[in-house]
Amino acid sequence: MKKYYLGLDIGGTNIKGGIVDASGNIAYKGSIRTRSNKGSDAIMSDIISFAKELILGNGLQFTDIAAVGMGIPGSIYSDAGIVMDSYNIGFFMVKVVEIFTAEIPLPTVIDNDANAAALGEATFANEDGYKHMVFITLGTGVGGGVIIDGQVYSGNKNVGAEVGHMSIMVDGRVCNCGNIGCWEQYASATALIADTKAKIAEYPDSMLAKLAEKDGRVTARTAFEARKLGDKAGSEVVEDYVKYVGTGLGNLANIFRPEAILIGGGVSHEGEYFIDMLQEYTNKCLYSAKSAEVVVKSAKLLNDAGILGAAALAIKAANK
Amino acid sequence: MKKYYLGLDIGGTNIKGGIVDASGNIAYKGSIRTRSNKGSDAIMSDIISFAKELILGNGLQFTDIAAVGMGIPGSIYSDAGIVMDSYNIGFFMVKVVEIFTAEIPLPTVIDNDANAAALGEATFANEDGYKHMVFITLGTGVGGGVIIDGQVYSGNKNVGAEVGHMSIMVDGRVCNCGNIGCWEQYASATALIADTKAKIAEYPDSMLAKLAEKDGRVTARTAFEARKLGDKAGSEVVEDYVKYVGTGLGNLANIFRPEAILIGGGVSHEGEYFIDMLQEYTNKCLYSAKSAEVVVKSAKLLNDAGILGAAALAIKAANK
Repeated sequence: MKKYYLGLDIGGTNIKGGIVDASGNIAYKGSIRTRSNKGSDAIMSDIISFAKELILGNGLQFTDIAAVGMGIPGSIYSDAGIVMDSYNIGFFMVKVVEIFTAEIPLPTVIDNDANAAALGEATFANEDGYKHMVFITLGTGVGGGVIIDGQVYSGNKNVGAEVGHMSIMVDGRVCNCGNIGCWEQYASATALIADTKAKIAEYPDSMLAKLAEKDGRVTARTAFEARKLGDKAGSEVVEDYVKYVGTGLGNLANIFRPEAILIGGGVSHEGEYFIDMLQEYTNKCLYSAKSAEVVVKSAKLLNDAGILGAAALAIKAANK
Repeated sequence: MKKYYLGLDIGGTNIKGGIVDASGNIAYKGSIRTRSNKGSDAIMSDIISFAKELILGNGLQFTDIAAVGMGIPGSIYSDAGIVMDSYNIGFFMVKVVEIFTAEIPLPTVIDNDANAAALGEATFANEDGYKHMVFITLGTGVGGGVIIDGQVYSGNKNVGAEVGHMSIMVDGRVCNCGNIGCWEQYASATALIADTKAKIAEYPDSMLAKLAEKDGRVTARTAFEARKLGDKAGSEVVEDYVKYVGTGLGNLANIFRPEAILIGGGVSHEGEYFIDMLQEYTNKCLYSAKSAEVVVKSAKLLNDAGILGAAALAIKAANK
């Protein structure tokens, strides 16, 4: 009798779920909209109905599921099964595991979505057998997950690995979190777009400006596109961006000396040449570079990363 | 029959050693000069003679010693028992454990001195029972050791935890290691002295300048002394220094979310008010500050920190 794991990826826009086997094959999956303005009671009710539908609606019984994992954005007290605060879905001190298991009595683990994604990479896409990895996402913000000896490291009360909030600039940009010079303020897609807009204002006749005008908007790709066309303004934005991202990668490399740093999130899809630029920059930052290399590479799990990360949590829960 | 541990603290100037019990009480200790320009054969020979003298000269037998630990500056392949490179003592790819145990056949572990010091604090001075700690030294450079679940974390091939070489300033000061903006270039005693000298050049009539002239030199204490006398130039140096040190502490707090960060090294002796300033700065950097505090405090093991750190390695070796 094959055992499955249920992975639930709870986001501010969608709740995605999948029935996954121990090798990371997704047998069934689905998605519902998050009623993010309806409060935690409504959302928990939706999550439970959705989970039941995924299991029972696909001809399985609860007993076919070894465990459930949920990846949730925000501060998560994983050991207690409580979401401390998740602004994306409006959960504050919600006993998610208690509420969920009252209806679906299966071993259930919740964790921060970036921690889950890191564990997913380590569990399902780690063909090199790395034991020490740092996973980062370059998206709206900069998230991170740290894998030490195959396990998620997240510090006291699971609040650690907030790598997006290390400062790379004394007296730098002010972050929403209150800190100064946070990496996220330089390395996120949001920051890249803002820096691109600033450069366009500086060089209104550049190819960069023309591309943005043609598209009717500035995206995280605009500067990369302009650079490919040989545009100086676009190249400057990209060079600065590589320096900003690379400085943080160098810091994580020197602090953790992981075997690899995996890059996920929207900007990571720019292509291997961008990853190569980050590898080169990171190498320049490495202390005692010849002692141990740090591989910079793209994260492998793409669209289903959230589901598979949550499923990896479930596998961990089942083996506890 | 009481068992002892031998801790050896191998420095560029002195080699210190102590016979230590499981509680960290030093029964016997001693010190010899390091013949640092004589090469690794001579120094290994000195270390072995010194270890024999410490054991046999104090009426003990090898069998009274459960294990030996050595803290050594530089890059140490701890698992292999090899010093990869230690510029302070001129060791490059020296099989320290093999050479040592050929003469003194006891379980022997070597590690980086900052890792050893961190483990010493965790083993002998951890009255609060912290499981996650970061130990840093503010000295000639900035060293660090990371304790996760009571064990030293040092990354792939033991090269990690180079916290002094995280960059806190994009486009900042160039470090000897080749990286840009390394914390060490701002937070070390060396940097503090350089910044004090620069401020004196800027304000030659300040109390800061007069103090330096009176002493005939600038030390890591000069700016602190001037600040106590209400001097503006001295206060500016101290404020900048707290910001520089604090930025790195904030980064370590957000990345590791340890229960405590311990400050050791010469500058840490400035006094509790300085530690309080660092605590205050770190609190301002903390992501989701209310979730979990990070205590900033002075390291407890002072002059014997090196011996006790090495002894902690020995205890670890004996319990393997």
